[in-house]
Amino acid sequence: MIFLTRRATFSASHYYWNPAWSEEKNEQVFGRCANRNGHGHNYTLEVTVAGEPDSVTGFVVDLKWLKNVIEREVLAAWDHRHLNLEVPEFAAIIPTTENIAIDAWRRLEPSVIQAGGAQLSRVRVYETPEIFAEYRGEA
Amino acid sequence: MIFLTRRATFSASHYYWNPAWSEEKNEQVFGRCANRNGHGHNYTLEVTVAGEPDSVTGFVVDLKWLKNVIEREVLAAWDHRHLNLEVPEFAAIIPTTENIAIDAWRRLEPSVIQAGGAQLSRVRVYETPEIFAEYRGEA
Amino acid sequence: MIFLTRRATFSASHYYWNPAWSEEKNEQVFGRCANRNGHGHNYTLEVTVAGEPDSVTGFVVDLKWLKNVIEREVLAAWDHRHLNLEVPEFAAIIPTTENIAIDAWRRLEPSVIQAGGAQLSRVRVYETPEIFAEYRGEA
Amino acid sequence: MIFLTRRATFSASHYYWNPAWSEEKNEQVFGRCANRNGHGHNYTLEVTVAGEPDSVTGFVVDLKWLKNVIEREVLAAWDHRHLNLEVPEFAAIIPTTENIAIDAWRRLEPSVIQAGGAQLSRVRVYETPEIFAEYRGEA
Amino acid sequence: MIFLTRRATFSASHYYWNPAWSEEKNEQVFGRCANRNGHGHNYTLEVTVAGEPDSVTGFVVDLKWLKNVIEREVLAAWDHRHLNLEVPEFAAIIPTTENIAIDAWRRLEPSVIQAGGAQLSRVRVYETPEIFAEYRGEA
Amino acid sequence: MIFLTRRATFSASHYYWNPAWSEEKNEQVFGRCANRNGHGHNYTLEVTVAGEPDSVTGFVVDLKWLKNVIEREVLAAWDHRHLNLEVPEFAAIIPTTENIAIDAWRRLEPSVIQAGGAQLSRVRVYETPEIFAEYRGEA
Repeated sequence: MIFLTRRATFSASHYYWNPAWSEEKNEQVFGRCANRNGHGHNYTLEVTVAGEPDSVTGFVVDLKWLKNVIEREVLAAWDHRHLNLEVPEFAAIIPTTENIAIDAWRRLEPSVIQAGGAQLSRVRVYETPEIFAEYRGEA
Repeated sequence: MIFLTRRATFSASHYYWNPAWSEEKNEQVFGRCANRNGHGHNYTLEVTVAGEPDSVTGFVVDLKWLKNVIEREVLAAWDHRHLNLEVPEFAAIIPTTENIAIDAWRRLEPSVIQAGGAQLSRVRVYETPEIFAEYRGEA
Repeated sequence: MIFLTRRATFSASHYYWNPAWSEEKNEQVFGRCANRNGHGHNYTLEVTVAGEPDSVTGFVVDLKWLKNVIEREVLAAWDHRHLNLEVPEFAAIIPTTENIAIDAWRRLEPSVIQAGGAQLSRVRVYETPEIFAEYRGEA
Repeated sequence: MIFLTRRATFSASHYYWNPAWSEEKNEQVFGRCANRNGHGHNYTLEVTVAGEPDSVTGFVVDLKWLKNVIEREVLAAWDHRHLNLEVPEFAAIIPTTENIAIDAWRRLEPSVIQAGGAQLSRVRVYETPEIFAEYRGEA
Repeated sequence: MIFLTRRATFSASHYYWNPAWSEEKNEQVFGRCANRNGHGHNYTLEVTVAGEPDSVTGFVVDLKWLKNVIEREVLAAWDHRHLNLEVPEFAAIIPTTENIAIDAWRRLEPSVIQAGGAQLSRVRVYETPEIFAEYRGEA
Repeated sequence: MIFLTRRATFSASHYYWNPAWSEEKNEQVFGRCANRNGHGHNYTLEVTVAGEPDSVTGFVVDLKWLKNVIEREVLAAWDHRHLNLEVPEFAAIIPTTENIAIDAWRRLEPSVIQAGGAQLSRVRVYETPEIFAEYRGEA
């Protein structure tokens, strides 16, 4: 079993805001992230698939294919976007690094399953070099 | 003469939009950056001062002082902010990396001049690790 | 389950020395690290907690809280310190990267347990970008 | 249990080519990597061993020893080499990142087993900062 | 005056060999780089242009244009290539980092001159993170 | 003219202390750096030489030679050392990043002059990735 990872980056805006709370409560919990004009990050996304290298190509998956899947399923929707305002899954849930990792998984998994052979193993999202969240699917 | 540099980071949103142009023209020139919901970056700011090390302390400037100047003059206004909507200098000019570097210089220079001894030598702003702009003041 | 990581850095001195050994034996085993004037590193500490994102905040833990825990429990004791001379746990055991990772875990775990919800999952310590040790607790 | 990692780098050439295929088929599958003049990379190799820190030295393994093993078993054969033309294991299999990780494991494991105490736990190979493969041995 | 930089990467093979010398002399001077099977690197190219930001766009140059120039003039010829065997300028001169920087300048300068406005200011080439060469044109 | 740079790293301890001052004054000015048990850093040293590439070798200088000069003149004295206690030039002056850059220049320049051909152009010292000092010799 080989774990093969491809990294990609995207730039996006977001804010943290719970509409059920008062402005004071939002600012108390979320601090500067509650600013509803938004702020942004250069996110780094690491997508790991697991499988056996094909005996003919030496590939677990074709990395050009994986790059295309990441661009089509994730970057096309998220890059140079405001996550709260333009990405449907973040209308109702807050786009924390944790939730971004889970939704990247949900966006990527069907294409990996459909391709067959390798499994989606891990998605890691860096909000900054100091903060990252990792999701490995439901146990 | 020693050139002493302190690096800092901030996260902000921005967009590129010229109000004198049509939407089509803005999208043609600025591409995805014209999305007025905004997108964002983890910016890295490098501030360089030049001077002789003090014979008693060995410092060109006290780096704790320089860090405080950067935080008070730049990060307090820009970090976790939407540059177009919340920073006065970017109401009229577009917050490109070039203009961000010039305005960081303008914000920092008075404090460095007032402190005496060292000169502001260079300001470099990274929008991403792949793109950066550098300003050295007016010749 | 999400694995959420926060990175921090600290600068410290240390040396490797076993008082039960002769100077020759120490130098033979530990090489330049046996220099008892000490040498130092910019250490990077990665602390990973695991849990479900809270349905209201989207947080596994509040990263400001985690940052404060790391500063209070680890950095306050280790940053800008000589590990052998000033940190009690390294009076009797050698502050190798391995032992530093274990002791960071021991310092952090009670606060994570007390907070409830998330578990301490992994502590990784980089002595340099080329060398790092990881501890995942006993079990 | 501590997981201790040492990173090393090597520069090598390679190409992707399946001699059972036509030139067209090779170019269709492998794209620019099928250029048989070769192209190259600065590879980064991360070798992780797992074990208990020795109570006397604080070491899982002596990192000078591990560095020497990596240099003797891997870098001496691969660094500044053309992997397809000069490395026996890549005469018959294609030197993809996946296969490079597996062969690094095969080259390193006997020395780690012979030394006793710690186990080889993980080998990770970065072809570029954006692409890496990880092998953890046969389950 | 603003100095605006765009970074790009390419992967290539090369060797160091002076055909006027014996094999012994080549190996004595060039060491492992004299291996004529070639070895390779992930090169990083930094291209800096200097000029005034346009008052309407805020751009010194359009970075999409600069990216395209780099891809068309440099990467199309060098990426995934063997520099000695496939790049005309390196048939007669050795593709050291120094010469690669000079030739990147020669390839880029006509497009920058033709575009008008900004000047090519600096080309920096990293062979590895530890080694880089910079060319600023003929004085 | 080409500017060719080689990077090296060393790990060392230091503290900031002016013996003419009281303990209070030292702590007020130097903060945690005044701790006389010492603390340490992984320093990165960048040494830049300037010259014309040799028409036969393509080298400004032989980088193996430059690496050896850096190791012999700087790293042998500074790596795994306590700068205040073991390095003569820092007995009387404080080993700030500024002074370390100046002394690296003084240690390196005679060898570069003696070799002929290229000139020492710049020495840059990173104390951390966030702080660096650069010296270009006396104007």
